[in-house]
This record gives sequence, structure tokens and C-alpha cells, in this order.
Amino acid sequence: MSHISTDNSQQFASDNYSGICPEAWAAMQEANHGHATPYGDDPWTARASNLFRDLFETDCEVFFAFNGTAANSMSLASLCQSYHSVICAQTAHVETDECGAPEFFSNGSKLLTAQTIDGKMTPEAIRTLATSRQDIHFPRPKAVTITQSTETGRVYTLDQLKAISETTRELKMHLHMDGARFANAIAHVGCTPAEMTWKSGVEVLCFGGTKNGMAVGEAILFFNRALAEDFDYRCKQAGQLASKMRYLSSPWVGMLESGAWKRNGEHANTMAKRLHAAIADVANASIMFDVEANAVFLLASEPHLQQLRDRGWRFYTFIGGGARFMFAWDTDPARVDQLAADIRAIMS
Amino acid sequence: MSHISTDNSQQFASDNYSGICPEAWAAMQEANHGHATPYGDDPWTARASNLFRDLFETDCEVFFAFNGTAANSMSLASLCQSYHSVICAQTAHVETDECGAPEFFSNGSKLLTAQTIDGKMTPEAIRTLATSRQDIHFPRPKAVTITQSTETGRVYTLDQLKAISETTRELKMHLHMDGARFANAIAHVGCTPAEMTWKSGVEVLCFGGTKNGMAVGEAILFFNRALAEDFDYRCKQAGQLASKMRYLSSPWVGMLESGAWKRNGEHANTMAKRLHAAIADVANASIMFDVEANAVFLLASEPHLQQLRDRGWRFYTFIGGGARFMFAWDTDPARVDQLAADIRAIMS
Amino acid sequence: MSHISTDNSQQFASDNYSGICPEAWAAMQEANHGHATPYGDDPWTARASNLFRDLFETDCEVFFAFNGTAANSMSLASLCQSYHSVICAQTAHVETDECGAPEFFSNGSKLLTAQTIDGKMTPEAIRTLATSRQDIHFPRPKAVTITQSTETGRVYTLDQLKAISETTRELKMHLHMDGARFANAIAHVGCTPAEMTWKSGVEVLCFGGTKNGMAVGEAILFFNRALAEDFDYRCKQAGQLASKMRYLSSPWVGMLESGAWKRNGEHANTMAKRLHAAIADVANASIMFDVEANAVFLLASEPHLQQLRDRGWRFYTFIGGGARFMFAWDTDPARVDQLAADIRAIMS
Amino acid sequence: MSHISTDNSQQFASDNYSGICPEAWAAMQEANHGHATPYGDDPWTARASNLFRDLFETDCEVFFAFNGTAANSMSLASLCQSYHSVICAQTAHVETDECGAPEFFSNGSKLLTAQTIDGKMTPEAIRTLATSRQDIHFPRPKAVTITQSTETGRVYTLDQLKAISETTRELKMHLHMDGARFANAIAHVGCTPAEMTWKSGVEVLCFGGTKNGMAVGEAILFFNRALAEDFDYRCKQAGQLASKMRYLSSPWVGMLESGAWKRNGEHANTMAKRLHAAIADVANASIMFDVEANAVFLLASEPHLQQLRDRGWRFYTFIGGGARFMFAWDTDPARVDQLAADIRAIMS
Repeated sequence: MSHISTDNSQQFASDNYSGICPEAWAAMQEANHGHATPYGDDPWTARASNLFRDLFETDCEVFFAFNGTAANSMSLASLCQSYHSVICAQTAHVETDECGAPEFFSNGSKLLTAQTIDGKMTPEAIRTLATSRQDIHFPRPKAVTITQSTETGRVYTLDQLKAISETTRELKMHLHMDGARFANAIAHVGCTPAEMTWKSGVEVLCFGGTKNGMAVGEAILFFNRALAEDFDYRCKQAGQLASKMRYLSSPWVGMLESGAWKRNGEHANTMAKRLHAAIADVANASIMFDVEANAVFLLASEPHLQQLRDRGWRFYTFIGGGARFMFAWDTDPARVDQLAADIRAIMS
Repeated sequence: MSHISTDNSQQFASDNYSGICPEAWAAMQEANHGHATPYGDDPWTARASNLFRDLFETDCEVFFAFNGTAANSMSLASLCQSYHSVICAQTAHVETDECGAPEFFSNGSKLLTAQTIDGKMTPEAIRTLATSRQDIHFPRPKAVTITQSTETGRVYTLDQLKAISETTRELKMHLHMDGARFANAIAHVGCTPAEMTWKSGVEVLCFGGTKNGMAVGEAILFFNRALAEDFDYRCKQAGQLASKMRYLSSPWVGMLESGAWKRNGEHANTMAKRLHAAIADVANASIMFDVEANAVFLLASEPHLQQLRDRGWRFYTFIGGGARFMFAWDTDPARVDQLAADIRAIMS
Repeated sequence: MSHISTDNSQQFASDNYSGICPEAWAAMQEANHGHATPYGDDPWTARASNLFRDLFETDCEVFFAFNGTAANSMSLASLCQSYHSVICAQTAHVETDECGAPEFFSNGSKLLTAQTIDGKMTPEAIRTLATSRQDIHFPRPKAVTITQSTETGRVYTLDQLKAISETTRELKMHLHMDGARFANAIAHVGCTPAEMTWKSGVEVLCFGGTKNGMAVGEAILFFNRALAEDFDYRCKQAGQLASKMRYLSSPWVGMLESGAWKRNGEHANTMAKRLHAAIADVANASIMFDVEANAVFLLASEPHLQQLRDRGWRFYTFIGGGARFMFAWDTDPARVDQLAADIRAIMS
Repeated sequence: MSHISTDNSQQFASDNYSGICPEAWAAMQEANHGHATPYGDDPWTARASNLFRDLFETDCEVFFAFNGTAANSMSLASLCQSYHSVICAQTAHVETDECGAPEFFSNGSKLLTAQTIDGKMTPEAIRTLATSRQDIHFPRPKAVTITQSTETGRVYTLDQLKAISETTRELKMHLHMDGARFANAIAHVGCTPAEMTWKSGVEVLCFGGTKNGMAVGEAILFFNRALAEDFDYRCKQAGQLASKMRYLSSPWVGMLESGAWKRNGEHANTMAKRLHAAIADVANASIMFDVEANAVFLLASEPHLQQLRDRGWRFYTFIGGGARFMFAWDTDPARVDQLAADIRAIMS
């Protein structure tokens, strides 16, 4: 790819800077003909639901919500009452970046946060939090939520997932997976979606569509079907039932039938590794977390980070000083190389 | 239009059977290039917001939500505390078809419903409900919501709106307008959007995009800006802040710049009048409500309605027995004529 | 009882004008010695709970809440999710006089009200409401609440209760009894508490202590124990767990061991019958509802009612014009006779 | 006091093990005559409210709630919307022992906790938490709650309170004081209630009655009256409006008119100092926090604490290993001496 064609407008502050990928767009365009029965009673939604069941090799319950805030909050609320609590990592998106949405949707369920370095939960951390209080003056832990891949770009192995689900089950709690970047996790591990979810004990998955290349729309998959009772009512009441549902489901058809969902994840991961490889030997920069999914966290001095900002780069800084770079389905390798070159120029 | 080209798949059960109109689609397509800052901090969202301010001739606060359930519920919640109540018509969509969403978003605000024949509220009905209870054992009325055009296809005149807002103000309540079909109301009255809203005392408007020709996305306009304090936090917490906001705002740019929003409303209204005119003299059918916006409510015997269903027509039946036909921006006149012909054949 | 000893301060506007009865007071006084473990882990609370189990002849779950608003709202919330609905009479206290408490505690469950003349629900009314809507745009009916005795002073027979519970069960809904005046109902029917509740299909009962002669404190009895899961957490979170619980439970010990709960109900009912008998032949006054429990609803002209007020009597007026007189455990018969005399003087 | 008269049943696990003090009891007994208008429209409630206004030397708004969980949660909810947050100490009772009540009453407001050693907040800690996030993805801080005296038995000085309120005001937040042990704080500082509250910038106080010697009933005082708008409706809806209100207000009359509220606080504080003095020189025991109010936190080895338990003493252990002893209005000095002797015997 020549320098001329580089998209200089690309930023890696988040993977939601990207647009709609061609496969999702094409399906949406195809769906945009004539009339369709609203509220999900249309052929596209049926097709998308069945594609999920095929992909996950099980007859799961499938719902669609507009965004991840709602998908995660509603599914957690379905696992809890207001006087229950949810165990998560201190860096979990539901804790740090949802403006109290889980508490709102559940009418007050508390989040109990485990201190972890890289955002990965462990059976020990879950057990410690779950058993630290057993009295009615503290909300009873009822669910665990893990993010796959994590907010730090790490990925749980299947063994780690199984150990977590065993602990969770033993403690009589439910296991939820925030899969805003599920595709990136699959691309890294190379296993099947079934293996990463219900075969490892996950009961509910929020499969992220937005960061994967769609405009709006996350899929909520209940592998434990009993937990999905009346979930359609919940979606409706919470303002998450689209009347023209085909525009949320048809992109999924495009993504799932073409395999774009996985290719998009792979490309984003590759871009993260590309940046990592290009700066691994830079003297004054270090990588905070193993680069497994589509994120690179760069630890550098604040003056160095400021120079990077001065060269036009936008990024979030992690608590403790790391710069986060997050890659998307559409990341231009030449633009990654520009970033790497700037980092090298500043921090060597 | 020849019979051959008629879209026989069109149904008039609801205007949300329709798809995305060309103007909205084109803008969305244009927006789908490269990267954009998420959560509304993008040029399309700024442009759409300013277009609303231009159209309404005032510096209102503008927000976007995914659907009408959320737009109406969140804006009502911003006018009320949980121990307050909202006055609406017994046929209001917030009462009959939102699965308790207003109660959920407000954490318990009660809806007090006025019995009206055609869904239009009156100052008298509002005053009666607002003053019937003045004790702390009943939630204090704090807001009035009216639907323009109403669920029965009727439209408030400007004088009626002003009389309602005067009463509401006098009772120290706020006035909200559910404008899921605002464009149809404007098309009928022929006034400016400013005249129909803040110049008539409306403080908050939910301007419906979905039924008007978009995939998702309603605009919430606060003319009383003080009421919008921290409303952006409310949207975020309630799962109504789109990360890729450009896909909610760009269609509005297409609709507002091209004037499609109004043309779409006019076309739908014209189709309703077309059906009305074609069946006005049918012996065993009568029209329940004046046809002002895009709806026709047909009063007929149940056997006759069943024959209509048997010919493949889908429709909702109103309490009391009327069949509702609701027309959209894309309604095919030839298909309307087919419906008229079938009604005539059955009910003459 | 001589005229001299008549308590002229007594009013019959409500039975909560009365104070604490001697049996409740004595037990509370006895409980007020030394220390006790808080939050219900004390001997008085254990004793009260067991007395309820004895009285109801079953191993029910027992909880105590501060007042009826909370007891009814929390128990209904335990039967519903926010997107469910509760069927009740249009005159039910939860609908008319709780300021939206059921909606608040449940985070939005809607109350569906049946039009009844005297506040008694019927299987037909329940079935009609429960089956009128079957779509996700309307909250799914999940519970029925009946008030025994009703707000109009009527009492369900055991056969009526059984018919209601059969219907409720058939419709897969739960049955809750608001027993703010349960003692009055028992006193009227003469059956056992078991017969009036779980043997007739009631799953949860809120047994009112306040109107029965206590200061604060209602008992919540779950006959369907599965429904009580984590209900102690619910009470705590909702601000309904007393730290010095012995002052809520010891009065119950006094009431239940002495039989005062039932005597109090009987006395109040007798006072209602006394008024009724004394004015039955008054020309311009009529009784709106059969006098079965402790209420008399007097239908009279507004000028006549005003004259009654002018003589110092306080009472609520029912929708439609009836004056409500409600008798308590401490009602002075001579004071009832004064009221009867005044009614006769005015309305003959 | 001879050994014979010692109340060996007394435990110092909490000050809510105590009963009703004589002054509160006497007033309640006096109130228990005849009828009274319900819901606070009675002479006792008016009198108690005025006594609060006199004591605090200002025309504050006065409400009564059943317990501290509700009083604190409702008053915090009146300062916040669901998408706002409340800043408190990590050891604050609202965070650690209310089962998520603040989140429930507010429909989701998040508590942001400051790490403090002894539970006292500082302007710096407040500022750090309040300014750490300024984006809509995190709930906006809107209120600060401080506990006076703290859960660790420490007391804010007036200067500390003023510094906190200045910071809070500067940050456009509201200041709430959890005064479950307000009397103990007053007894320690020796200032007037006015000086400790509104003269130091506190806007809302929950004045604890239960731990101070009552059965139930906390007073909520709004010095910033605007914040109390419709608070009576909030109490009603939340199940916190007593029908027989005189039994919550008359004990306050007894406490406030007799000065028992303050004497009770003084006695409890004296008992804490008595224990402290008696064990100050014990070799293997140390005091964790300055003994200012009515608590003593004893740091000792777990085997030593277990020996104490084996001798029949009950106590909570603080995170980190301290045993909490909390004294009440009725603490028997001889029983304190018994505890001191046992500690000395075990830990010397």
C-alpha cells in the first residue's frame, strides 16, 4: 500500500471510529426493499437468529439490542434482582464507562470490582469477592461478568474460562460474557464460538456488532434458555426493541454468512500486532499488556505522550499512564506504520 | 401506475412496515466513509443539530435516541420524579403500547389517562385529572403529553395547542409532544414547526424519524433548555447513546436538507385521503375519525373485516372494532386502490 | 356506657386514627428490657414468627415491614418483573392511595384495574384483563392482588377466593392478598386464617397490624415459600428492615397470644353493624355496600353531608358521593350512637 | 455499682442492641391516648417538628422516616438523578451496610468511594474523586455524604466540616450528613446543632433516633429548603410515611424536650472513654482510632479475639482485624469494666 493512499484521518483512539463494513452495508441495502413486518417478525431477523444458532451449534435464544450499554445491562439485569450484586473487574467497561447503566437497568444492583492488573478475572478473585460478605446488609453476589477480549486487549484461554465457570457455578452464580470484541477473541484463540461460550460454561453472551463493523446492533445470546424468559418484554420496556428490526438483523446476516465478522476481528488483531512488532525495540516505550486482541497499551512518559498528541494522534490514557491504541476492521496498515514511525522518532 | 408495477407486498397495518427513504439512505451512505469521532462528536451530528435549530427557528437543545419508546420515556422522565404523574389520553401510545416504558425510565411515575373519543386532549380533561387529587397519597401531576398527530390520525390545531399549553402552564406542569408522526401533522396544518411547538407552548418534542423514513433514530428537542440539564448523561445511562452516532444523525441531514421529512408526511397523508375518498360512499363501512394525517380507521362488522383479512390484508383493530390503516412515505397509490376496491367489494 | 364517658374526640374517617391496643402495648413494654440482637435475630421475632405459623397451620415464611405501603409493594414486586403487570380492582388501595409505590418498588410494573362496583374482583374480570393483550407491547400480567376485606368493607367468601385462585393459577399468575383489614375479614367469615389464605390458593398475605391495633408493623406471609427467596435482602435494600425489630414483632406476640387481633376485628365490625342498624330506616340516607367488615358507606346528598361536617364529623367521600365511616378496635359505641343520631337528625 | 446489679446480657456489638430510653417511652405512652389524625397531621408531629426548628435555630423542613437506611437513601436521592453519583468514604455505612439501598432509591446513582483510614473525608479526597472523570460515560458527582460521628467513632471538627462544605459548594455539589450518631458527635464537640450543620454548610441532615434511644424513627432535616420540594411525596411512595405518625414523632418530643438526646450521647461516649482508659496500657492490644464518640476499635491478634469470643463477648471485626465495641445510652459501666478486665486478662 503506497503512502499516497494512506487514510490520514484514521485514529486509533477507539475501534468505534470506524464505519460500516462492506458486507454489513450490502446486506442492509438488500434489506431496504419494500415492506417488512416490524419488531423482528421479518425474514431477516429469523435468518440472522438461525445463523447465530448455526454458528454457535446450539438452539440458543437470540435478541438484538441497539448498543452494548443496553445489551450488557439488560442481560445482567436478567440474572439479578436489585438486591443482588455483579462481580466484575475494576477495569470492566460496565464499571468504568457506562454511566451507571447496569445499576439503572437493574434498579440498583451493585457492581463488586476485583482488582486485576490486566482486566482478567480469576477464580480466586471471584471467590474472594463472592464470599467476603454473607449477610443481608450487603447485596448477594448473583452474577459474574467477564469481558472477552478484555478492555486491555487480553484474551481468556478456554481453560481459564472453564475454571471461572466452574467457580461461578459452585458459588451458585451466573456467568455473563461481554463480547463487545468477541470476534477479536475468537480470532486470537482460533477455537469455535461454541467452545468459547456455552461449552466453557458461559450462560449469556453479548456479541458486539458495532465495533465489529456495523452501525448499531448487538446480539444477546442466551445459552441457558431459562434465563431468557420474557426477555423480549424487557427489551421492549427498556426502549431496545427496534420497530424496523431488519436494519439491525440484516447486517448480521451479511457479517455471519460472509464470515466478515471473523475476518474483521483478524484484521484488527493483525494491525495491533503490526504496531507492536514495529515498536518492540523502542527504548523509551514499553507494552503494558500482551498483545492478543486488537489493542496496544503503550507505557511512556507524559512528555513523550504529549509529543505524540502534538503530532496529531488521538488516544485515551489508561489509569497509570498508558496510551491506548485500538484497531478496527478498516485499519490502514500504512497508517499504523505512520504511528509506529512517530513513536520511534519520539521515544528512541 | 399500471397494475403490474403495484407492490403487492405492501401492507398498511403500520407505517413502520416501510423502509429507509432515498434521501436518508443517500446521506447515510455519504456518512459511511472513513473514521468519525464517536458519541456525537462528529460533523454529521453537529450539522443535523443545527438543521433542527434552523428548522425550528430557535436555539433548542438536540439529542438523538434510537427509538420512540426511549425518546418519549426519557423526555417524560426528565419532567418528572418517580412520585409525580403524567397526564395523557387513554389511547396514547405511551400508555397502550410501550410495555410500561415510561414507568420504567422514570422509576415509577404513573400515567393518568383521560377518556377521549379520538385521542385528542382538551384543557378541561387535563384540568379535571390534574385537580382531582391534591393529597400526597396520589402522585402529583407534573407533565402532560400529547401526540401530534394522534394515534387516531387527528391533528391538534394551533389554537388547541395554545389552549392546552396555557392550562398546563397555569397548573405548573410541563408540556411534552410525542411527535412520532410530527411530519404528518405539519403536512396537515401547513404551519411552521416553530408555530406547532414552542410558539404554541410545547417545551419538549420527540420528532419521529423512524416512521418518517429512517431506520432508527428519533430527535429530542428541548425548547425549554433548562429541562435538558444533564440529559446527555441520561441518554448514556439508559443505553441510548450511539457510539457511531453519525448513522443516526446523517439520515436526519438528508431528510432535513432535502425537505424529504415534509414530503414524506404529505405523501402519507395524501394516501390516507385517497383511501377515504375511494370508500366514502360504501354502504356498510364508515370512517371513525376525521382523516387529517396518515391514518384511516374503518368501522365495519367483524365478518366484513374477516373477509378483508381473508383477502390478505393485515391491520390492527381498534378497541371498539375499527380497522386501522396507516400509510407511509412509500405507499403505492395502486395498492391503496386495491384496498379500496376490496373494501367496496365486501362492504357494499 | 354513659354519655359522660363518651370519647368525643373519636372520628371515623379512618381506622388508623386509633392508637395502640393494650395487648400490643403490654408486649412492647415487656420487650423493652435490656439488650436484644438486632435485625430480627431476637427471641420476640422468633416467637412472633412461630405464632403466625401456628395460627396459619403451615410453615410459611414470615417477614415484618414498617407499613402497608411497603408490605404490599414489596410482596407484589417479588411476584413480578418491571415489564409485568398486576391486576387489581380500580378501588384497590395500591392503585388509589399509595402514590405509585407499587410502580416504584417494582421499577415500573403497571397496575391493570378492573371496574368493579364494590371493589371485589371476579374470575371473569381477571380473565378479561389478563387476556386482553398478549403482545410484548403491553406488560404481561403476572400477579393478581385482592383486598380482604375490601376498601368498601366487603368480604370475599371462601368460594369466591377459590374461584379467583383457580383462575389465577390457570392463567399462570400469582395471587396476593392485601390484608390491611384481614382480621375484620376473618371476624366476618368465621373461618380459620388457613382457610382464608393458602387453603383457598392465596400465595402471599400482607397481614395488617397497624389498623388492627399496633403502632407500626405489617407481617408478610409467604405460603408459597419459593416466592420468598432472598426476600430478606429485598426488605433490607428497600429500607424496611428494622434494627430494633423486637418493637415490630413483640406487639404481634401480644396480639396473637391474647387473641386480641381477632377481638379487635370483631369489635370494629360490630361497630359498623351498630351504625348501620341505627340508620337503616333513615329516609334520605342509604347504604352503598353490604356492611360486612368495619366500614359503612353512606350515600346522601352533598348538602346533607355538609351538615354532617358542620356538626364536627370528619370523613372521606367516595367517588360518586358516599361518606365513608371506618371503625377501629377502640371505637366507643356511644360515639357511634352520636353519629347515628346526627345522621338521623339531618337526613330524616 | 455492685457486681450483682450488672446486666450481664449487655453486648457492645452495636448500639442498636439497646432498647427505648425512658424519656422516649414516656412520651410515646402519653401519645397513646385517644385518636389522632394520621400521616403526620397530629399535634405530636407538629410539636416535634418545631422542637427541631428550635434546637437547630432555623426554619428547616422536617420529615420522619422509619429507619436510617431509608432516611439516608431518600435524602441522597433528592440530591441526585440516577445518572449522578455520590461521593462517600469507603467505610461509609451507605456503601458497606445498606445492601444497595442508595442505588435502589435513586434508581442507579453510583457511590464513589474515597479511601480513608478512619472514615473521615477530606476536601482533597472529594476534589480528586469529583474531578477524576468529566465525561458522560461516568456518572456526574452531585452529592457528598459524610457520617458524623463516623463509623469508626471519629468526629469532624467544625473547621473540617466548613472546609468540606466549601469544597463541595465550589464543585457545585450538595452536602449531606448521615447523623445516625449525631448526638454522639455533638456530645464530643460541645457545639450547637446549628453550628455542626447549616452554619458549617450542611444542607441535609439525617438525625438518628434509633441508636439514640428510640424504637424506630429518624428525622430528616432540610436546611436548604428548596431541596425538600415534594419530599413528602417521596416518603409516601417509598413506603416511609407512617399512618400513625405520632408514634414516630412523640418519642422525639420526649427526647428533645428533656434533653435526653444529648445526655444519651454523652453517656455512650463516656462509656467508650471508660473502656479506652481501662485498657490503654494492655500490652497486646492497641486502639485503632482516636476515641471521640461512642466506639472503641481494638486491634489484637485473632487468637486473642477468639478468646474474647470464648468468654461470651460478641463484636464485629473491622476489615484488617479490629474488634468494634459500640456503646449505647444504656450501657452499664460495670459491664464495661467486665469487658476491660477480660481484655486485660487475655492480652496482657
